Amino acid sequence: MRIGELSRTTGVSVPTIKFYVREGLLPAGELTSPNQASYGEAHVQRLRLVRALLDIGGLPLAAIRDVLTAVDDRDLPVHEVLGSAVNRMVPRYDREPGDTGMAEARKRVEDLVAARGWRAHPGGGAGEALAVALAALDELGHGDFAEVLDAYADAAERVARADLEYVAHHVARESVVESAVVGTVLGDAMLTALRRLAQADASDRTYGDAL
Amino acid sequence: MRIGELSRTTGVSVPTIKFYVREGLLPAGELTSPNQASYGEAHVQRLRLVRALLDIGGLPLAAIRDVLTAVDDRDLPVHEVLGSAVNRMVPRYDREPGDTGMAEARKRVEDLVAARGWRAHPGGGAGEALAVALAALDELGHGDFAEVLDAYADAAERVARADLEYVAHHVARESVVESAVVGTVLGDAMLTALRRLAQADASDRTYGDAL
Repeated sequence: MRIGELSRTTGVSVPTIKFYVREGLLPAGELTSPNQASYGEAHVQRLRLVRALLDIGGLPLAAIRDVLTAVDDRDLPVHEVLGSAVNRMVPRYDREPGDTGMAEARKRVEDLVAARGWRAHPGGGAGEALAVALAALDELGHGDFAEVLDAYADAAERVARADLEYVAHHVARESVVESAVVGTVLGDAMLTALRRLAQADASDRTYGDAL
Repeated sequence: MRIGELSRTTGVSVPTIKFYVREGLLPAGELTSPNQASYGEAHVQRLRLVRALLDIGGLPLAAIRDVLTAVDDRDLPVHEVLGSAVNRMVPRYDREPGDTGMAEARKRVEDLVAARGWRAHPGGGAGEALAVALAALDELGHGDFAEVLDAYADAAERVARADLEYVAHHVARESVVESAVVGTVLGDAMLTALRRLAQADASDRTYGDAL
């Protein structure tokens, strides 16, 4: 198909498609004449993935490029690619809380990972993101909120088990990484939305009748 | 304190502080002379909250202003304010998947809320966000991933129970809404980070030895 049809099919404008090609997020179309290119189903799929990572995952373009590079590398061992793709999808924060707070928060993350027996590196992107959140809670005077951490870790285990069972049962080797990327980003969106719905329910049961 | 000290204490630059005051995110300082204002502990606290909502929550400025308005309104019933503040913290997506997909996804969200017996409005911000994620999964050819939904809903219930228990046991009436805002935004960050750590563990157990 021509670029106009690709645009109509995906709802992404022609200038945006050209921008993604220049930025390396979308492979160029196959040249059919000096100034005309042809696009296929793979381009439709890739464009949708880019939009999901951008609009729903809120990933910056550079992170999307890194994640797609991992998706396209068929030679890396599954576990390694999963780890690196998933770590690149952790948000990075512009500004970190004070160093004392961060050192203490990192220690709490290490302790949590050890206490849970998780085979995970607490100093990676995810551990660091958790430490930033814990340090920010302290700075904001809501450090007590960290007492929910164990309930959250239980919930995270439940979710991760479902994630991996899905991958193990449904996903062919060549699409494991794409599935992990889609599942990570859309899974986050699902989980936070479900948390809001479950909070509304719990809040209604706690405060709805009384007030 | 003067604006320079407020800036040093919080790590937010003087021009940015002035911008937040103009945008209504931070109350103006008390004028001590025609061109000098004085700021207090409440300004430090509010600035930190704005930065957490911005940097960690990724909320747009307009949403932060709405949320802070709810935080400052002491007359609204708790349950109502919680609902409206929490709903304003659901991300809105620029572009929605095709209408057919969305209609079907909205139906699935309604069915889920009904099956769980959740006292929550499936057509609100959170339900809509969940429907967008489900429709995007289908569009991307990963519709099967929605089978994790029940495990995610279990996890969300566990988390929401911990959230509400924390609020019920630790939080004074006048700070319930601020706690809900902080807990919602930082809780999301904690939960997605924990999900990554638990995924790393589950992935290592599933694939780490074999490959």
